[in-house]
Amino acid sequence: MQRTLIRETPQNIGEKVLLKGWAQTIRDHGKISFIDLRDRSGIIQCVGQNLPKITTESVIYITGTVAARPEKLVNKDIETGTVEIQIENVEIIALAAELPFDMGQKELNLELPTLLDHRALTLRHPRVQAIFKVQEVVIDAFREFMKKEDFFEFQAPAITPATAEGGAEVFKVDYFDKKAYLSQSPQLYKQIVMTAFERVFSVNKVFRAEPSVTTRHLTEIVSLDAEMAFIESWTDVRNMADRVVKYILREIEAKCARELKLFSIEVPATIDETPTLSLREALVKIFEKTGRDVRGAKDLHPEDERDICNIIKEETGSDLVFIYGYPTKKKPFYVYPNPEEPEFNEGMDLLCRGVEWLSGGRRVNDYEQLLAQVNEWGMDPEKISMFLDAFKYGAPPEGGFAFGAERITKQVLGLENIREAAMFPRDMERIDVRLGEL
Amino acid sequence: MQRTLIRETPQNIGEKVLLKGWAQTIRDHGKISFIDLRDRSGIIQCVGQNLPKITTESVIYITGTVAARPEKLVNKDIETGTVEIQIENVEIIALAAELPFDMGQKELNLELPTLLDHRALTLRHPRVQAIFKVQEVVIDAFREFMKKEDFFEFQAPAITPATAEGGAEVFKVDYFDKKAYLSQSPQLYKQIVMTAFERVFSVNKVFRAEPSVTTRHLTEIVSLDAEMAFIESWTDVRNMADRVVKYILREIEAKCARELKLFSIEVPATIDETPTLSLREALVKIFEKTGRDVRGAKDLHPEDERDICNIIKEETGSDLVFIYGYPTKKKPFYVYPNPEEPEFNEGMDLLCRGVEWLSGGRRVNDYEQLLAQVNEWGMDPEKISMFLDAFKYGAPPEGGFAFGAERITKQVLGLENIREAAMFPRDMERIDVRLGEL
Repeated sequence: MQRTLIRETPQNIGEKVLLKGWAQTIRDHGKISFIDLRDRSGIIQCVGQNLPKITTESVIYITGTVAARPEKLVNKDIETGTVEIQIENVEIIALAAELPFDMGQKELNLELPTLLDHRALTLRHPRVQAIFKVQEVVIDAFREFMKKEDFFEFQAPAITPATAEGGAEVFKVDYFDKKAYLSQSPQLYKQIVMTAFERVFSVNKVFRAEPSVTTRHLTEIVSLDAEMAFIESWTDVRNMADRVVKYILREIEAKCARELKLFSIEVPATIDETPTLSLREALVKIFEKTGRDVRGAKDLHPEDERDICNIIKEETGSDLVFIYGYPTKKKPFYVYPNPEEPEFNEGMDLLCRGVEWLSGGRRVNDYEQLLAQVNEWGMDPEKISMFLDAFKYGAPPEGGFAFGAERITKQVLGLENIREAAMFPRDMERIDVRLGEL
Repeated sequence: MQRTLIRETPQNIGEKVLLKGWAQTIRDHGKISFIDLRDRSGIIQCVGQNLPKITTESVIYITGTVAARPEKLVNKDIETGTVEIQIENVEIIALAAELPFDMGQKELNLELPTLLDHRALTLRHPRVQAIFKVQEVVIDAFREFMKKEDFFEFQAPAITPATAEGGAEVFKVDYFDKKAYLSQSPQLYKQIVMTAFERVFSVNKVFRAEPSVTTRHLTEIVSLDAEMAFIESWTDVRNMADRVVKYILREIEAKCARELKLFSIEVPATIDETPTLSLREALVKIFEKTGRDVRGAKDLHPEDERDICNIIKEETGSDLVFIYGYPTKKKPFYVYPNPEEPEFNEGMDLLCRGVEWLSGGRRVNDYEQLLAQVNEWGMDPEKISMFLDAFKYGAPPEGGFAFGAERITKQVLGLENIREAAMFPRDMERIDVRLGEL
């Protein structure tokens, strides 16, 4: 008999079906038992008599008849709530061991260490699955949008020969008898590939050896990167970033209604013209509205980010706001200084609900200027010779941006800790297992 | 003036356009000069008088009029061969330094070390770009097919806590004050995620510290992995692998006609029922057809792989052939032994044109059997406790497969060396730069 997916059952009332899945919850009422069966497509209530002894999370095959539920017993919370399965036979495929905690609870209220210690199990919980379905949509939507805009996808390397930008927070690899490093960013590679393919993007891992355990840090993240040639101004980069972020939000709304409902959250509000302020304008605004005098600051501190987002939201209704024009020396060597005011650059950040979502801006494409900035920033041109070659042989005006899949997932769903937004989060204290125990 | 892409020029005869790109070749005939301008969409001939001095690969903006070429001057090799641009103005955006070799040659006949030493430049060559366009289609087609089949995409980790399978060929990472490793395969992770999402796939980096420099080895590759639950037999896995590989080949045919033509190659031939032989059947066939007595061998050697592919091609017309039923102990601990003949397993390989393309098969899903095999293979269950948990709490009959994006790209295009199929290939001797020089 052909397997029926659970989501297809409402179209099969009165018919005999074979369902395959996991026994998510089991309720025994004397002779009669209720099993909530879960497969990749949904959950359905099955009811039967004199069933064999089954443990929660066991894999079972249920043969039975799809029956319409009486109106008053319809469960509006699930898509199969109008039907139930009258069990004829249960085949036990794999009996689960006793669970370390109750997987049947709707919220799965576990402490984070427990949630991660039992990742193989907690991944089965609908609330946890919702997080990674949203993350899949974030990444898919990014890829889909970039391809529509004629961007070429390339595979950025993970192993790199040298650390172009700061060596402190980089992981070292024993590479045969040499030292290599894990990539902190595909920045230099995407700029190289841009000089060949014009419009490029990548979805690749980056690694940060930050020795801090906070709610915002992971050592391994999925970086969504884009770079585009032949821009007229940094605002071309801003517009592309603005459009892709809005596209991602629309896709989440369209495809993750159930997931958003589980987290009782709405995606951030956007308006046609995303507010865009220079750093100095933002600082003045914060002073005017809050009285905190941050004018003259070189960057936005977390409190400033929260304040400016709140102010902009109140003034315009937009959860998104771009900040540009940072002090040139506060950004990496490749960022483009404003020609009319070279102490400020054409780098930008996108903030949302008080947190930075995305960074980017225009880059220096002139070889001589780039070489001058490499030296001014105290870097060794030898260590980035392949990158410099790309510009030595003719590179167009260009810019790009990057953001992390886990951070967007965390922010959209309002998760407390970024570790919840990584399927197998790595940090200073954990790689699957707690490192202290190794 | 709005930029026109080069591929759009044939639709704009008689009109004035602004083109932006790289001067791929420049031919001076006294006062008259010809420039082949390249952008991401194509190449076009531009002709003008008294042009400024331009070097090859410089970035230039050309303003001019699109003119139809006389019939006898039509260039059938390029898509814009029916037109040319009559230059009115050339703006030099970035003058390229003198090139280390001629980038105008159609074949780009460079030694591999030179090709890679100058990767930032050689990536601009149409023949090199063709390789990565094919690779993009391979990866996209894989993703597209798996999603259509209801597989969930997850992000497999790169950093792992321990080496489950053999420690010799794994890269070590300095992980704060602990040791970590680079993932050799997402195998155990995809099996974990399968127990939660049923059908899963990933496109992720894997790392192999093989201390050998051959035409087939890279230390960092893009692995295309899939795993599926609720199979009836290993042939369900074979069928899924068969269909995705055929889908990839059809997509390459449909989207890469120009690229295949550049390499004068056709995609491998397939037939509806891909021939499938047990290892023993294959060895007997090789003996019968070639006289080489390999019956009783435990595996296929490279010569056997070539022979069986040739024989099957001759007999059936298929370039693809599945081999299954390897000696159980020659495959990893998780492979499913044939219950009727446990010394042979339900692992399989897909061969094509004499080379293995893909590996997979059914896995052990019963927890007790899995634990027994872990011990029999001499592995430490503690080191894979998260993996074992997934099976302890109920796992369905399942299987999966994996293949490398670079190898498929190499094989489809008939490249001599797999390094040509990686944009930034890493091996024992090179990470962008030659390591001997560091």
